[in-house]
Amino acid sequence: MCAKKNSSIKQFQKLLGIKKKKKPAHKIGLPPGSLIYTGDKKQEIVTITLISYDNQSLHEEKVAFEQLEQHPMLLRNVVWVDIVGLHDVKILENVGKFFGIHKLTLEDIVSTDQRPKLEVFEDYLFATLKMIQCPSPESPIDEEQVSFILKKNILFTFQEKKGDVFQFVRERLADPKRPIRQRGADYLLYALLDAVIDNYFIVLENVGERIEDLESQAMINPGNEVLNSLYAQRREIMDLRRSIYPLREVVGSFTKYAEHQISDEVKPFIRDLYENTIQVVETMEIFRDMASGVLDLYMNIISNRMNNVMKVLTIISTIFIPLSFVAGVYGMNFDNMPELHLKYGYFYVLGGMGISVVGMLIFFRFKKWL
Amino acid sequence: MCAKKNSSIKQFQKLLGIKKKKKPAHKIGLPPGSLIYTGDKKQEIVTITLISYDNQSLHEEKVAFEQLEQHPMLLRNVVWVDIVGLHDVKILENVGKFFGIHKLTLEDIVSTDQRPKLEVFEDYLFATLKMIQCPSPESPIDEEQVSFILKKNILFTFQEKKGDVFQFVRERLADPKRPIRQRGADYLLYALLDAVIDNYFIVLENVGERIEDLESQAMINPGNEVLNSLYAQRREIMDLRRSIYPLREVVGSFTKYAEHQISDEVKPFIRDLYENTIQVVETMEIFRDMASGVLDLYMNIISNRMNNVMKVLTIISTIFIPLSFVAGVYGMNFDNMPELHLKYGYFYVLGGMGISVVGMLIFFRFKKWL
Amino acid sequence: MCAKKNSSIKQFQKLLGIKKKKKPAHKIGLPPGSLIYTGDKKQEIVTITLISYDNQSLHEEKVAFEQLEQHPMLLRNVVWVDIVGLHDVKILENVGKFFGIHKLTLEDIVSTDQRPKLEVFEDYLFATLKMIQCPSPESPIDEEQVSFILKKNILFTFQEKKGDVFQFVRERLADPKRPIRQRGADYLLYALLDAVIDNYFIVLENVGERIEDLESQAMINPGNEVLNSLYAQRREIMDLRRSIYPLREVVGSFTKYAEHQISDEVKPFIRDLYENTIQVVETMEIFRDMASGVLDLYMNIISNRMNNVMKVLTIISTIFIPLSFVAGVYGMNFDNMPELHLKYGYFYVLGGMGISVVGMLIFFRFKKWL
Amino acid sequence: MCAKKNSSIKQFQKLLGIKKKKKPAHKIGLPPGSLIYTGDKKQEIVTITLISYDNQSLHEEKVAFEQLEQHPMLLRNVVWVDIVGLHDVKILENVGKFFGIHKLTLEDIVSTDQRPKLEVFEDYLFATLKMIQCPSPESPIDEEQVSFILKKNILFTFQEKKGDVFQFVRERLADPKRPIRQRGADYLLYALLDAVIDNYFIVLENVGERIEDLESQAMINPGNEVLNSLYAQRREIMDLRRSIYPLREVVGSFTKYAEHQISDEVKPFIRDLYENTIQVVETMEIFRDMASGVLDLYMNIISNRMNNVMKVLTIISTIFIPLSFVAGVYGMNFDNMPELHLKYGYFYVLGGMGISVVGMLIFFRFKKWL
Amino acid sequence: MCAKKNSSIKQFQKLLGIKKKKKPAHKIGLPPGSLIYTGDKKQEIVTITLISYDNQSLHEEKVAFEQLEQHPMLLRNVVWVDIVGLHDVKILENVGKFFGIHKLTLEDIVSTDQRPKLEVFEDYLFATLKMIQCPSPESPIDEEQVSFILKKNILFTFQEKKGDVFQFVRERLADPKRPIRQRGADYLLYALLDAVIDNYFIVLENVGERIEDLESQAMINPGNEVLNSLYAQRREIMDLRRSIYPLREVVGSFTKYAEHQISDEVKPFIRDLYENTIQVVETMEIFRDMASGVLDLYMNIISNRMNNVMKVLTIISTIFIPLSFVAGVYGMNFDNMPELHLKYGYFYVLGGMGISVVGMLIFFRFKKWL
Ligand SMILES: [Mg+2]
Ligand SMILES: [Mg+2]
Ligand SMILES: [Mg+2]
Ligand SMILES: [Mg+2]
Ligand SMILES: [Mg+2]
Ligand SMILES: [Mg+2]
Ligand SMILES: [Mg+2]
Ligand SMILES: [Mg+2]
Ligand SMILES: [Mg+2]
Ligand SMILES: [Mg+2]
Ligand SMILES: [Mg+2]
Ligand SMILES: [Mg+2]
Ligand SMILES: [Mg+2]
Ligand SMILES: [Mg+2]
Ligand SMILES: [Mg+2]
Ligand SMILES: [Mg+2]
Ligand SMILES: [Mg+2]
Ligand SMILES: [Mg+2]
Ligand SMILES: [Mg+2]
Ligand SMILES: [Mg+2]
Ligand SMILES: [Mg+2]
Ligand SMILES: [Mg+2]
Ligand SMILES: [Mg+2]
Ligand SMILES: [Mg+2]
Ligand SMILES: [Mg+2]
Ligand SMILES: [Mg+2]
Ligand SMILES: [Mg+2]
Ligand SMILES: [Mg+2]
Ligand SMILES: [Mg+2]
Ligand SMILES: [Mg+2]
Ligand SMILES: [Mg+2]
Repeated sequence: MCAKKNSSIKQFQKLLGIKKKKKPAHKIGLPPGSLIYTGDKKQEIVTITLISYDNQSLHEEKVAFEQLEQHPMLLRNVVWVDIVGLHDVKILENVGKFFGIHKLTLEDIVSTDQRPKLEVFEDYLFATLKMIQCPSPESPIDEEQVSFILKKNILFTFQEKKGDVFQFVRERLADPKRPIRQRGADYLLYALLDAVIDNYFIVLENVGERIEDLESQAMINPGNEVLNSLYAQRREIMDLRRSIYPLREVVGSFTKYAEHQISDEVKPFIRDLYENTIQVVETMEIFRDMASGVLDLYMNIISNRMNNVMKVLTIISTIFIPLSFVAGVYGMNFDNMPELHLKYGYFYVLGGMGISVVGMLIFFRFKKWL
Repeated sequence: MCAKKNSSIKQFQKLLGIKKKKKPAHKIGLPPGSLIYTGDKKQEIVTITLISYDNQSLHEEKVAFEQLEQHPMLLRNVVWVDIVGLHDVKILENVGKFFGIHKLTLEDIVSTDQRPKLEVFEDYLFATLKMIQCPSPESPIDEEQVSFILKKNILFTFQEKKGDVFQFVRERLADPKRPIRQRGADYLLYALLDAVIDNYFIVLENVGERIEDLESQAMINPGNEVLNSLYAQRREIMDLRRSIYPLREVVGSFTKYAEHQISDEVKPFIRDLYENTIQVVETMEIFRDMASGVLDLYMNIISNRMNNVMKVLTIISTIFIPLSFVAGVYGMNFDNMPELHLKYGYFYVLGGMGISVVGMLIFFRFKKWL
Repeated sequence: MCAKKNSSIKQFQKLLGIKKKKKPAHKIGLPPGSLIYTGDKKQEIVTITLISYDNQSLHEEKVAFEQLEQHPMLLRNVVWVDIVGLHDVKILENVGKFFGIHKLTLEDIVSTDQRPKLEVFEDYLFATLKMIQCPSPESPIDEEQVSFILKKNILFTFQEKKGDVFQFVRERLADPKRPIRQRGADYLLYALLDAVIDNYFIVLENVGERIEDLESQAMINPGNEVLNSLYAQRREIMDLRRSIYPLREVVGSFTKYAEHQISDEVKPFIRDLYENTIQVVETMEIFRDMASGVLDLYMNIISNRMNNVMKVLTIISTIFIPLSFVAGVYGMNFDNMPELHLKYGYFYVLGGMGISVVGMLIFFRFKKWL
Repeated sequence: MCAKKNSSIKQFQKLLGIKKKKKPAHKIGLPPGSLIYTGDKKQEIVTITLISYDNQSLHEEKVAFEQLEQHPMLLRNVVWVDIVGLHDVKILENVGKFFGIHKLTLEDIVSTDQRPKLEVFEDYLFATLKMIQCPSPESPIDEEQVSFILKKNILFTFQEKKGDVFQFVRERLADPKRPIRQRGADYLLYALLDAVIDNYFIVLENVGERIEDLESQAMINPGNEVLNSLYAQRREIMDLRRSIYPLREVVGSFTKYAEHQISDEVKPFIRDLYENTIQVVETMEIFRDMASGVLDLYMNIISNRMNNVMKVLTIISTIFIPLSFVAGVYGMNFDNMPELHLKYGYFYVLGGMGISVVGMLIFFRFKKWL
Repeated sequence: MCAKKNSSIKQFQKLLGIKKKKKPAHKIGLPPGSLIYTGDKKQEIVTITLISYDNQSLHEEKVAFEQLEQHPMLLRNVVWVDIVGLHDVKILENVGKFFGIHKLTLEDIVSTDQRPKLEVFEDYLFATLKMIQCPSPESPIDEEQVSFILKKNILFTFQEKKGDVFQFVRERLADPKRPIRQRGADYLLYALLDAVIDNYFIVLENVGERIEDLESQAMINPGNEVLNSLYAQRREIMDLRRSIYPLREVVGSFTKYAEHQISDEVKPFIRDLYENTIQVVETMEIFRDMASGVLDLYMNIISNRMNNVMKVLTIISTIFIPLSFVAGVYGMNFDNMPELHLKYGYFYVLGGMGISVVGMLIFFRFKKWL
């Protein structure tokens, strides 16, 4: 149905900065639970950071998986195991085997186009969502899948690459007087989710600023550039929607299904988180409306301008075309044209032309074209 | 993705009166319950007004927080504690400690971009919503977050700044014969909520008038000014929607969840309030439709005008371009052009031109272009 | 945000027949149950008509309120008390006191912008809705709030002004052989509601005719007049929607909640009424679609016309502008222009021009512009 | 609000083939259960056809109502009473009396604008829907209301006029080996409903073909004719929707509510019927989308054409207007114009003009206008 | 209503590659359970492939139906009977009789326009859906109906024609160490469904690429070709929707209704499948939005271009029409035109014209038209 993409289009796409999305390597025909990382390999080495703490002490170290299995901390305290890098599926398989994680869960962790979801298993809780960052209106949106497994006193986080939004949580952990040090792994999960969702607000604020800038640009200098930016913006919001929309369901399910894994003490915080999520979703919907609104505005401004251009053309034509005709008449070379020989014929004609111009201008003013 | 906002855009935004919204200082990474006021500091001093009454007497005084704690009125009668100014979080922390308010509730009170909501705790009821005022169609919409805590005989209200919509309630309180003096703090809460929602009606009526004015302006004098006003109006309605939409849920939850805090006697009034809320929401939806309708109308009028402009251009061109051609022909300098030497050649040509003009006019009339 | 409405706009609105809606006097800060009539005072005197009947006899008289209280009929038979005129709240207060009607119900009766609703109290049933009349497609829509209170054998109706849609019910009442004379006040309520809803059908049929007329006008003579009528029509439908939409809920609630007040015998009739209501709502939605459809059609016709106008302009210009250029060339006054001195130069040029015209016409026909 | 429909509009409507819809004679003020046929009288005589059968024999005869009452077949076998013609309400009243049919059911049968519905009474089942036929894409849609009453072994069908979609069912009845002869009146009801709904598929296929033809026409020859056909088509779909949409509910209710009237054996067939109904509704929605899509396409083609027309105009004007100006300059009659006396002045000018034309053409090609 | 399709339209449709859809031969009036294959006969011979396996051995052979009935494998192991070709209804009837399949199920298998569905019978499970393939963005979408019957240890698949998406499943079956060899027929059903749904992802990715190509083409070279491709694309998505939308319901019903047929072990896999289905549906909705977005973009680009074309026309006309007029004036042949005799008159006029051109250009630059 579609002709072959010729190279000029590809060049054009490069110019416009249209990056071909990575084709998610859908694992056709593979058995379920196949651990194949579908993202790009974003870093060389998988790092495992282990932070264990109680209200007395905090211990942090980078470990290899072999160390993890026999780590003395695992049985005591709260333990946060932060695994960064998902391309080495061996490590994940080992984690899965050692900690009793279902194969399908592991598959979801490495499928970077996994829809955000929460799943409650008999002895652990699994949540996966997108962590997005966009520190300023000028920076591109950086998306990364992050998954959480909460099993008793241990919380696993799985990230695609270095860098996350958890810096402030780490700082709070460092301070022994903070409530986070008094509480369990469920509260740590809440705190991390809260950090993720707080970042959605920042991203959306920056998206909002971009839309407002595009609106101003549309008013000052409407043209294909603004139009393309507007469509790019709209698609960006569509992409965001895909990450954000399921969040409502994910966070909403916590209070419903996670009876055993979340303590009563932490539940009010989850409710608060849910409210924030609702607000994120609503804000995004408003921005979607705003983006469409700016597109409409753009089209209306273009229409207005065209209208004005047409008016100018019409006024000029309507004034001068008849005058040119009159001049043409007296430029004819007939032998017998009595007016040509009148002493003031030329001036009469000029006068008549002047009067006609004035009449036209009055008419245009009356029609509100001037 | 977006180029840096250059200064000309900012200047332009200033001209258009586009105020940069305050960036809600999302408290990234902060622990939950962090009391950080996210609004502008709108007044210097926090004022606490205490009104206590029963059917016999009414007592009103401005107090400092220290006085509040030991105030003899707190245990007797109905007490309304009206706290205006939220930037001094110390005072809120003290109120929270003394009256047993959850940290997350306090956080919601100072987060001025909090979504309207109702929360029922074991021993108190918390509601927060937006109080909007717009006394006339010409005045801007003034929005302020107001929160309510109902705890037995005490009702707290938390406002961002001086000025509210409760004047008439205060007047009714002043009159010992009014039913409000016979009833409890739950009725006072109802009366204040009713005052807030009654004001939504006024705001919406004024918004409706603005839309109707814009409609008239669009018909009389369509142009970029009206267009910009229309888009500003549409965005204003979007903002209003954000405040108004959750109200339905808030007031609707009262009858469902607030069994213990609201007496049976007051419940019919809450139902009435709920109906009013529904009506507010429906009215707003109608205005949203109306605003889109005016935008459509505007575009259609522009189209109509363009059509008329084009007709004028076409008529003028169609009449004179052929005539000019004829004049051009007889203005050529060929040696041998027999017509030029006819005695009445000039008059024949003028006559032919006149006939052609009349024919054109008849044709245009037939085509309904004239 | 909006500039002051200058007087020219107001004049314009008068011309267009835009009536300022009555500002609903929202009773800000008033206690609930305040009896303030929010409509216009539409007649001088409040009339109370009492019709009492059983299958033997029928008695009708106009009474004053004082007579009503002690009227012997009230305890026997079916009694219909029809109160017309709501501005004299004294009478309503007395009715309320004597018959035990809740203050909030009385407030709803006099609030003429009350949303249609049904409320079931312990010993009475309250329903309020809009009675609309539009006897022909040319007549304006006449809307009036009508409220019903059914209390055992007594049915109250409260109307804003003289004139209603109950004439046929009165005629059926006059005939002792009709089933209505055999049945109770609940059947009377049904009969009156049925009459109200039957009138919606007539109104909608007339609205439908207006839309079809506008469609024809749009096809014959599209212009600002039709456009304005279309928008007026659309707004009229919006207003109707507001009255009609809640009806579904009102009539639907009857069978659910009015167990005690409606006898089993009458319930099938209420179900039938509900079906009619659904059909009214669906018809209205279809008309809403139709009205948008006509607006679209209008715009498409305008576009088509513009297209045709442009074609004429382009054809004329494309034929004559090049010819004029050629004539201009041979009108130049260069000393050395050999063609001018050819014996048949003029005729060669005329011939060339003729050929070019024929070529153009063939080209336009090929392009389907002719 | 609307001016009186002047006669020119009516003439126009006649030309366009806009048939005034029959005004449904809404029976204002009439008591419920009034048997007034709201359709057109489509045939003179009411015919009653009685088909009774078991797996042994089949008996068919046209009867008068009086014969029907005492017919020996009524108590044995399966009996199908097919009544065609609804204007003679006497007959219906008698049927109602003799077979114990509720007055409201009879009213629904004769109200030809009745919304499709299923009603389950204690001892009978009532269903009414629209039977539509459109044998080919060129034929108009023929709609007729058909009602069913299933009472034990008897099935009544009520049609407005001669002609139906039941021919194939009659043929199956004629063959004693067919399962339909082994089963009860409930299976007959299913078979007839299935025939009705099968015909919806044919109608929709023809509607689909019409839309595709209109699409082709819009691409070949866009103009007011296609536009009008498209709007007519859209309205036709709207009308169809009104008949089809409630079907889902009607057939869906069967399995839920008709426990007593439908045997277990027949239930799987009803489920199959329900699926077909869903598919009809979905197909209709797709055609609605397609019709809007063709309208959009039409508008876009018009826009494209206009764009091309404008390009031609602009190219011609942009090439020749400057050249004409130059010719005009050298046609001026100043005494002192040195270029005129150059030996090759004329040829220089012609050459310059040629170069400018070539330059323009290159520019237009660069701009992709050629 | 519609004129007869004349042959020019048909020719045109052929040119555009519009293939008339096969008219589903709706089996009007036929009894339910009529086995009439509604698709095209896509291959000559019906092939029956039997694959039976346990964790020890795997046996595959092509059999005739007669062999199938007495096949020793049927009672042992897991058996997959893959029947390709549906036009020979005899074979299906025999399968139905021998394995106890309901006639309505057989009818659904051969009705190739059957809506995807899942039906749970007492002793078997029936599922039917569309298997779609589109290996590259350039290839057309190939759709085929595939039905599944799961009866204890036997799984039937019914395909319309050769070729399917099950290759990888067959490969996994060939390897005795794979889990699929350890599990039952329910797991095989899951594996096949998973393969079908995995292919939807590939199809949608290719559709997405087509849309992005069309977007690029719309930006580079907007015209009727792109427009037609866009509409074809939109219709393709509509068709896909019809196949995909019901999938959600089908896969969702598995966990709810298929208690007896699906073992607990396989249920988590079905849940995973359900998630995939949701993601397919969401992706499709996004592509639908994207396709509309590209259509909008196209129209906006056209508008922009038209605007630019108009500007060029207006600039040229506005500059040269007045100048031509002036030249025309001095080309008049009046006896008394004093300027003509000025020594530098010609040069003054040329200078004045130059100044006016510069002024115009400045004006246009100020208006941002240049
Ligand atoms: Mg993309
Ligand atoms: Mg797979
Ligand atoms: Mg998965
Ligand atoms: Mg990371
Ligand atoms: Mg938060
Ligand atoms: Mg993404
Ligand atoms: Mg804003
Ligand atoms: Mg936080
Ligand atoms: Mg909060
Ligand atoms: Mg305040
Ligand atoms: Mg109120
Ligand atoms: Mg706001
Ligand atoms: Mg538009
Ligand atoms: Mg209004
Ligand atoms: Mg009030
Ligand atoms: Mg009220
Ligand atoms: Mg009245
Ligand atoms: Mg009725
Ligand atoms: Mg109307
Ligand atoms: Mg009636
Ligand atoms: Mg009825
Ligand atoms: Mg018939
Ligand atoms: Mg069927
Ligand atoms: Mg109809
Ligand atoms: Mg459009
Ligand atoms: Mg098709
Ligand atoms: Mg059939
Ligand atoms: Mg079927
Ligand atoms: Mg196949
Ligand atoms: Mg899969
Ligand atoms: Mg298909």
